Amino acid sequence: MSPARPGLFVTLEGGEGAGKSTAAAGLAEIFRAEGLEVILTREPGGTPGAEAIRALLLGDVPLDPLAQTMLHFAARADHVESVLRPALARGAVVICDRYYDSTMAYQSYGQGVSIEAVAALIRLVNLHPDITFLLDLPPQLAEARLRSRAAGSDRYEAMGHDFMARVAHGFQSIAAAAPGRIAIIDASQSPEAVVAAMRETIRTRARR
Amino acid sequence: MSPARPGLFVTLEGGEGAGKSTAAAGLAEIFRAEGLEVILTREPGGTPGAEAIRALLLGDVPLDPLAQTMLHFAARADHVESVLRPALARGAVVICDRYYDSTMAYQSYGQGVSIEAVAALIRLVNLHPDITFLLDLPPQLAEARLRSRAAGSDRYEAMGHDFMARVAHGFQSIAAAAPGRIAIIDASQSPEAVVAAMRETIRTRARR
Repeated sequence: MSPARPGLFVTLEGGEGAGKSTAAAGLAEIFRAEGLEVILTREPGGTPGAEAIRALLLGDVPLDPLAQTMLHFAARADHVESVLRPALARGAVVICDRYYDSTMAYQSYGQGVSIEAVAALIRLVNLHPDITFLLDLPPQLAEARLRSRAAGSDRYEAMGHDFMARVAHGFQSIAAAAPGRIAIIDASQSPEAVVAAMRETIRTRARR
Repeated sequence: MSPARPGLFVTLEGGEGAGKSTAAAGLAEIFRAEGLEVILTREPGGTPGAEAIRALLLGDVPLDPLAQTMLHFAARADHVESVLRPALARGAVVICDRYYDSTMAYQSYGQGVSIEAVAALIRLVNLHPDITFLLDLPPQLAEARLRSRAAGSDRYEAMGHDFMARVAHGFQSIAAAAPGRIAIIDASQSPEAVVAAMRETIRTRARR
């Protein structure tokens, strides 16, 4: 951790049904029990402006894929400047359910927006996680988990099997390209085992 | 005009009260009278998605300046891909009331977002006007015109005199840097004279 940013920025990534929200909440609980300030948040969202943008993204208005990508980064810029940077500056642990790897996986690998466009937007926001967990789950297991949920249909879940396969391939490619930042976690384990694996990885990699 | 883009893309820029909307409508009328297909549009807006983003931008939810910038470009990307590119491809004259120079003037010069950030977003959208008119009006005249309107208060107009001065300086700097694309029009003339000056400039510069 550089002195300019004493906090710890952890992001969780993966497809629908991988258990990100549960794992993020469990990890937050552990850090809180250790006496640390924890900001548990999610994207798109985390500020009133970003939640308004989220509503637009999850709504019925048709939007070009590049426009959707820019909306994700608009929400992210608001979240980063209003919440994440201040929290990290005062030393908090920030745990964020989805971050820019999701935009790369869904909008580039899934919807065909160029990787260079998403990379340019990442450079504009310019806040990078200290560590990212990719919660990895075989597609059949993820689909079974999703089917057992109350119908959570949104723009993505409605996009079907091929789209989800491209997104899953995207996450694997992103993780392969950033092994120093992204740790792959077996999400077929129990929630407790997933959280324990994340906590141990943070100890090893981020010395925290 | 390249064979790949047979149409003509005209944008109008300038501060509030310069008469852009009236001038755009007048220019559209002239081209229609010449028998051409004309798309008269505005930014932010021009598609259902972009209008929803416009409502967010003009609303009361606080938004970081970089987030506002990205929202403008999200709306623009939707407008460009859904409306402008198809219209230009079939040979239409597109007349747009505000385009990316406004984002540069308001968000960079006015609100302090870096010029490089806006330039990066311009490169992502990658559709450039054939000709841009900067409707230039002395600040006192613009303020008098605004005062005579029914109170059109929005995020910008509420920002006051210093902000509007920075925006005006921004437009002048942008025009100075792109003399081949941007023509400055004296907006203190009558609406008819402004439209005639634009039509003549298009004839001279764009050979149309």
